Amino acid sequence: MDAQLRIGIVGYGNLGQGVERSLAMNPDMTLVGVFTRRDPGSVSTIDPTVSVRRIEELDTLQDEIDVLILCGGSKSDLPEQTPALAARFSVVDSFDTHTRIPEHFAAVDAAARAAETTAVISTGWDPGLFSLQRLYGEAILPQGETYTFWGRGLSQGHSDAIRRVPGVAAGVQYTIPSDDAMARVRAGDRPALSTRDKHTRECFVVLEDGADQDAVREAIVTMPDYFEPYDTTVHIVSAEELARDHAGVPHGGFVIRSATTSEGVAQTVEFQLALESNPEFTASVLVAYARAAARLSVSGDHGAKTPFDIAPGLLSPKSPERLRAELL
Amino acid sequence: MDAQLRIGIVGYGNLGQGVERSLAMNPDMTLVGVFTRRDPGSVSTIDPTVSVRRIEELDTLQDEIDVLILCGGSKSDLPEQTPALAARFSVVDSFDTHTRIPEHFAAVDAAARAAETTAVISTGWDPGLFSLQRLYGEAILPQGETYTFWGRGLSQGHSDAIRRVPGVAAGVQYTIPSDDAMARVRAGDRPALSTRDKHTRECFVVLEDGADQDAVREAIVTMPDYFEPYDTTVHIVSAEELARDHAGVPHGGFVIRSATTSEGVAQTVEFQLALESNPEFTASVLVAYARAAARLSVSGDHGAKTPFDIAPGLLSPKSPERLRAELL
Repeated sequence: MDAQLRIGIVGYGNLGQGVERSLAMNPDMTLVGVFTRRDPGSVSTIDPTVSVRRIEELDTLQDEIDVLILCGGSKSDLPEQTPALAARFSVVDSFDTHTRIPEHFAAVDAAARAAETTAVISTGWDPGLFSLQRLYGEAILPQGETYTFWGRGLSQGHSDAIRRVPGVAAGVQYTIPSDDAMARVRAGDRPALSTRDKHTRECFVVLEDGADQDAVREAIVTMPDYFEPYDTTVHIVSAEELARDHAGVPHGGFVIRSATTSEGVAQTVEFQLALESNPEFTASVLVAYARAAARLSVSGDHGAKTPFDIAPGLLSPKSPERLRAELL
Repeated sequence: MDAQLRIGIVGYGNLGQGVERSLAMNPDMTLVGVFTRRDPGSVSTIDPTVSVRRIEELDTLQDEIDVLILCGGSKSDLPEQTPALAARFSVVDSFDTHTRIPEHFAAVDAAARAAETTAVISTGWDPGLFSLQRLYGEAILPQGETYTFWGRGLSQGHSDAIRRVPGVAAGVQYTIPSDDAMARVRAGDRPALSTRDKHTRECFVVLEDGADQDAVREAIVTMPDYFEPYDTTVHIVSAEELARDHAGVPHGGFVIRSATTSEGVAQTVEFQLALESNPEFTASVLVAYARAAARLSVSGDHGAKTPFDIAPGLLSPKSPERLRAELL
């Protein structure tokens, strides 16, 4: 890139903080500011010199920002924010409600085309990098099956469910790919597997004083939908242990394409993410796609885009010549 | 795609055969013919109804072929053929001499721009899919190291070296990623590793009558450059065993990005190929990129391209809408 890319962060939870960290590792980008719906005085950025402003102040900053990175949630923030902001800025989001992607794309595309901005939606890792692997696998090896396994990773929804069980003071839940299911897929068996076949669940629980360990365990493993259909393990731990060993937000998973290219000739493509911080990784993906959004916008390629539409080279700060010489 | 893509295969060794097999799995493509420098009567295609013609006959077929898939070797065929044919057709190759990619790109680009064709070079898996993983890993996680391991795979050059050892009747060599090196990389140690640190070598050898097993073993493991620097294992096998268990052309490997996104927070991205047939897999990649070449050519995006320049969605027969709904 010739000039510094000027980036704004919209929303400052775990994801926004991850974007701030990632921008510091990308010398071709400058953070213009964090924009929030909260009282700016209540927001502490990692670098205390970062400007924090009300989101309304974006109204006057169209000429000072190249790309906004949207760090809100997919449930209620992004369906509103992405189209509204794409009407004024090039943007990147990590919208991850798979079933609602077509309508989100349509709303963002209309806004971005009208405003001649570029809006990259559904970056991150699933949707995002996992989607890319599913696409490459299927396009290259049409005779096969694709399997997505999630974990080992902290599941917020299942952790919340544990904490609602009577007698539970605190707890976390990890989703874990089933060793058995992974082995069958890697062996080329191409089994039919549901989400419950592919995963097991592991819980670390702190009991309330006087709670009955067996009753808590039973209440968890028999909970319909959340745990009953799965092979679930419950570990009772101390509050200290929970704080020491389970404070992170790990996640990850696998995408495996198991295919054949002729009778009896198996070809297996496997992609794995092992992430110690899910939000910091997702943030890093957003930042790379912000670079692509800026380049597409400059080249006049407007409208909504997904990772499927972005040539990989656009993510890198290196020139095409350097990429060919160093990485091809 | 609306109309069938009309494909020609240039060169009919293992790779060309793999392309013929792959085309049969892609219903949006039609094989127009195989073009060869040999006597067409001496070439037996898998499907005996395929038209086999002399390469010179391409001169009259510009309006009947959308993309030529070039299946020659990188040493002497492709440096001549790709620019020459890109001057008349959109083409795809798997040029894999890493150090000569910049000059190959320049020659092909000049020819393709002048002729308004689209030429995708260096597809396959390394260069190709492995290159893409190196790029995505580095662009998303700038603070880290990327490791490429090859194998378990048959190495033609090392197999040839074994066969030149006195007393050896036949043999094959597999390059194997070192378990120890892989474990250190996955643990996030970010070790400095040379190619020899990362791989071990395993040989399966058939002795000539009366040959001294120990002398053969010693001659192999002490061979400079080829085996001496590596941890090498030599298995003496019968001719029957070699024919039964070692007739395939397996290959594959790993690309691992080991990185951090903040102090002490490790993020690991790992990509693995386990291929029972190296040429059939490479052929499958060429065919998917032929689809992209045709689309780029129709849209007026001419010149030389590499996998870095190709938006992933262009590889798939599915429409962008379907890809978003099904795979994102």
